[in-house]
Amino acid sequence: MRIAQAIIAGLTGLALLLPALSMAGPTPLSRKVQTRENMEGSIPRPDQEKAAQAKLDALYQKTGKRPNIIWLVVDDMGFGDVGGPWGGGAHIGAATPNIDQFAREGLALTSTYSQPTCTPTRSAILTGRLPVRTGLTRPILAGDKLKMNPWAGETSIAKILSDAGYYTVLSGKWHVGELEGMRPFDVGFDEYYGYYAAQKEITQSLDERKYPDLVLDPEKLAAYKSMHASSALEYGKKGGQEQIIEPTTSVEQFAEADIKLADWSINKIKTLAKSGKPFFLSHDFMKVHADNFPSKEFKGKSASKYPYKDAVVEVDALIGRIHQAVKEAGIEDNTFIFITSDNGPQMDSWPDTGFTPFRGGKASAWEGGVRVPGIAYWKGMIQPHESAELFDLMDLFNTSIHIAGADARIPTDRFIDGIDQSSFLLADNGNSRRENVYIWVEQDLMAMRMREYKIHFQVTVPEQQWMDIDMSTKQKVGLAPWLFNLYIDPREQTPVGHRGNAWLASMAAEAKAHAATFKKYPPKDVGLGQ
Amino acid sequence: MRIAQAIIAGLTGLALLLPALSMAGPTPLSRKVQTRENMEGSIPRPDQEKAAQAKLDALYQKTGKRPNIIWLVVDDMGFGDVGGPWGGGAHIGAATPNIDQFAREGLALTSTYSQPTCTPTRSAILTGRLPVRTGLTRPILAGDKLKMNPWAGETSIAKILSDAGYYTVLSGKWHVGELEGMRPFDVGFDEYYGYYAAQKEITQSLDERKYPDLVLDPEKLAAYKSMHASSALEYGKKGGQEQIIEPTTSVEQFAEADIKLADWSINKIKTLAKSGKPFFLSHDFMKVHADNFPSKEFKGKSASKYPYKDAVVEVDALIGRIHQAVKEAGIEDNTFIFITSDNGPQMDSWPDTGFTPFRGGKASAWEGGVRVPGIAYWKGMIQPHESAELFDLMDLFNTSIHIAGADARIPTDRFIDGIDQSSFLLADNGNSRRENVYIWVEQDLMAMRMREYKIHFQVTVPEQQWMDIDMSTKQKVGLAPWLFNLYIDPREQTPVGHRGNAWLASMAAEAKAHAATFKKYPPKDVGLGQ
Repeated sequence: MRIAQAIIAGLTGLALLLPALSMAGPTPLSRKVQTRENMEGSIPRPDQEKAAQAKLDALYQKTGKRPNIIWLVVDDMGFGDVGGPWGGGAHIGAATPNIDQFAREGLALTSTYSQPTCTPTRSAILTGRLPVRTGLTRPILAGDKLKMNPWAGETSIAKILSDAGYYTVLSGKWHVGELEGMRPFDVGFDEYYGYYAAQKEITQSLDERKYPDLVLDPEKLAAYKSMHASSALEYGKKGGQEQIIEPTTSVEQFAEADIKLADWSINKIKTLAKSGKPFFLSHDFMKVHADNFPSKEFKGKSASKYPYKDAVVEVDALIGRIHQAVKEAGIEDNTFIFITSDNGPQMDSWPDTGFTPFRGGKASAWEGGVRVPGIAYWKGMIQPHESAELFDLMDLFNTSIHIAGADARIPTDRFIDGIDQSSFLLADNGNSRRENVYIWVEQDLMAMRMREYKIHFQVTVPEQQWMDIDMSTKQKVGLAPWLFNLYIDPREQTPVGHRGNAWLASMAAEAKAHAATFKKYPPKDVGLGQ
Repeated sequence: MRIAQAIIAGLTGLALLLPALSMAGPTPLSRKVQTRENMEGSIPRPDQEKAAQAKLDALYQKTGKRPNIIWLVVDDMGFGDVGGPWGGGAHIGAATPNIDQFAREGLALTSTYSQPTCTPTRSAILTGRLPVRTGLTRPILAGDKLKMNPWAGETSIAKILSDAGYYTVLSGKWHVGELEGMRPFDVGFDEYYGYYAAQKEITQSLDERKYPDLVLDPEKLAAYKSMHASSALEYGKKGGQEQIIEPTTSVEQFAEADIKLADWSINKIKTLAKSGKPFFLSHDFMKVHADNFPSKEFKGKSASKYPYKDAVVEVDALIGRIHQAVKEAGIEDNTFIFITSDNGPQMDSWPDTGFTPFRGGKASAWEGGVRVPGIAYWKGMIQPHESAELFDLMDLFNTSIHIAGADARIPTDRFIDGIDQSSFLLADNGNSRRENVYIWVEQDLMAMRMREYKIHFQVTVPEQQWMDIDMSTKQKVGLAPWLFNLYIDPREQTPVGHRGNAWLASMAAEAKAHAATFKKYPPKDVGLGQ
């Protein structure tokens, strides 16, 4: 309750700065309708919802089987790393022909929002809930002692889809808790094959070139290992024990991880396609999170030759292979695929880092931290086009569950922040149903996007260029929130503020209404607070 | 000669900072071959040159007519304004479906370089020569007194193509001299229909909302008008006199300029298609240079509604109409079209400005100043693809002349900086023949791009954000040139320098060899020097 009170107090304090902020619900600027007090409101689009539902129903009629769902989540890849409408690719040294093809043949989303870091995004898309609600407000690091299991009282999409008759699989990076009760096969996945931590956590104790102070000092190394959990490739099955498939013994061996994971997923797709059940596969790449080591096959395969760029080329190629497997298994028409990254590029590991055209990077509330590529692909179901309308990665929770026909299984006893965006994705020229994107960094509501406007209540300020994580501070803004028009100022450099924009008070009121949801549904503190 | 000596002295001084710089020609890093001492060397690509020539010959065999050539040059449009691989479009408030379509169906060039400002770029593409050679080193402004006609001794592509049997037309913005002897129809164009100056110059004395100090003060206004040349829409014909078609009397009237110009070009295309002659049309938009006023048809047509964004939507739509005219005239198969912008976005007119993902803007030597969108389109002749290889807009001079079969008419008594890139554009998966892009700002060689590296000898530093023109200075770098790897650092933030890169001395030697060309072929000083 301490955190909840701080959040509410913070936003009430904000209200004092603004004229006549008596409203606590949607403002005249808002088009959203709230159908349940503990569910984020959405913009009604009755015609497109009907059209999308008709498509889903017709497909079900034809196949007699719920659609398969595949999420392909890259780690720390920047908005600007990818070709297609995100503006990256060959000219920054790593072409992405497979992702580009998905973008051309699917719905390319240019205003997709993640959480600012890994664990928060992954927990949010798995639960449809903001990290501040689940307590998973920052990456779980080696040595962290949690007060409680963050999954206690949470319901993952894997559990919901399993209950609805799906076979559920997670391949690759987990990073949402590795103790008993927190593992993928503890929280609903039928199978898990992957690594619990991020790449750096796995290779740090093996990489004497970058970390000689750790690797070449036996005493420190022993201390590190004593606090460190698994860095092995592991396998787990629902109801069963986890088993170590392969301990990680060198950076060269670990460099092959993504190829192994893709091979496993491809095999799994083949097997599952033959089964009677629909499946849900979350394939979570280890790359392109720092520290990147090139696999044998992809070393020097990018124009740039740098490990990060080779990693982009590898991930792109593996996405192509997974796509090929879906096609060869004959299930492409009945498989919804979503491709994204879990947050903006981590800039302070440069040159082992990605590119964003925006301000800031991973861990910041600037667009550089939370704006990621997004592609929704479904052959024959999603018309190839681009959209700049809002999509929050949390919407993947509700959207995938709707596609699976399992809406009724979404918990109603807690606040759900995701929105069912299936009609946005499926209807021809569909529009987003999301009115607000709330940007939290740990326990702080930093900013909110609404239409083309973005308002900041606090900002992440790096002391030095690119130090968005390691030498940045969260600072409260002064007299009035910083309001940017992202159309004319995509890089958030010149606030239009109250004098140049009619909606400052309205947007602050929307944020306040959001904060008010924590009164009845208080945030959870699992021990990751400051 | 003063300027020439300064240039050479500056670069010789640079050499003192570097170890053992005895070379004065291409370095081992360089793949280029110099076939004439006064012509920029190029990378030999014998196979692709043969393939491209075979295509051109086959088409000539079929049509019996040299290809038409159309340049579509937008004013001050940013790299990041455009959709497609440049990463702009809808998500920054102005979709560009027509340009996107050209990009999809043509060769989308993501490493195209302009000069940093308008007059320099326009003179360079018309002559194939760097501005420092022609003396057109900065925009000619109202009140400028030139020492001599910069066109004296210069040969424009319009003259060359006219002599080779083309009908040559310029529609739109000129801005390369408006006195007798400097006008389009004085330097080789058969016809001209357009405005001599940039938009701001034309509307400034009519815009009391932005310039009350000028417009509402009769004495200042009279003084302004006394020094100001034409702001009218004019028409001129080779050998004839110019005539005023329509004086500009209000911003609302001028807002329609681009529609009038496009209508004129479309009509001209129809007429010329029926004639026996091939034609060259340079269609130069007035928009999107500040100050933008929305035309009646396009006001509020962008998602953003801001005048700049409406201007982007208008230019895009007019490019679509010109394309349509080419198709309807039945000449698409025999017409080479190139679409570009004359320099990066002018940031200090914000919010009447475009977007670049790079550092800096118009007038700077940073990528933001000189990196522009480029599309080469030729139905049936240019395979749809993207390339991140180097293209300098000056190459349009040689490339277009080669396509016209008029290579022999390129002057041999002066230095030509352009390269014939027709084989890069025409051969399937063609490679660039350009090894070095030299970036000059006025009389200073600021930087050089070579492969993915860029070396700065001087830098443009704005005192305040976005003040790349009005409150920036050119500053010499310190101990060693600043060397960036644009693949891993597209925004030029962290120099890899000598310690992180093997080529610093080689690149400095390449720049020095370039500077040495001015010894025998000295730069011209037409009175635009500092």
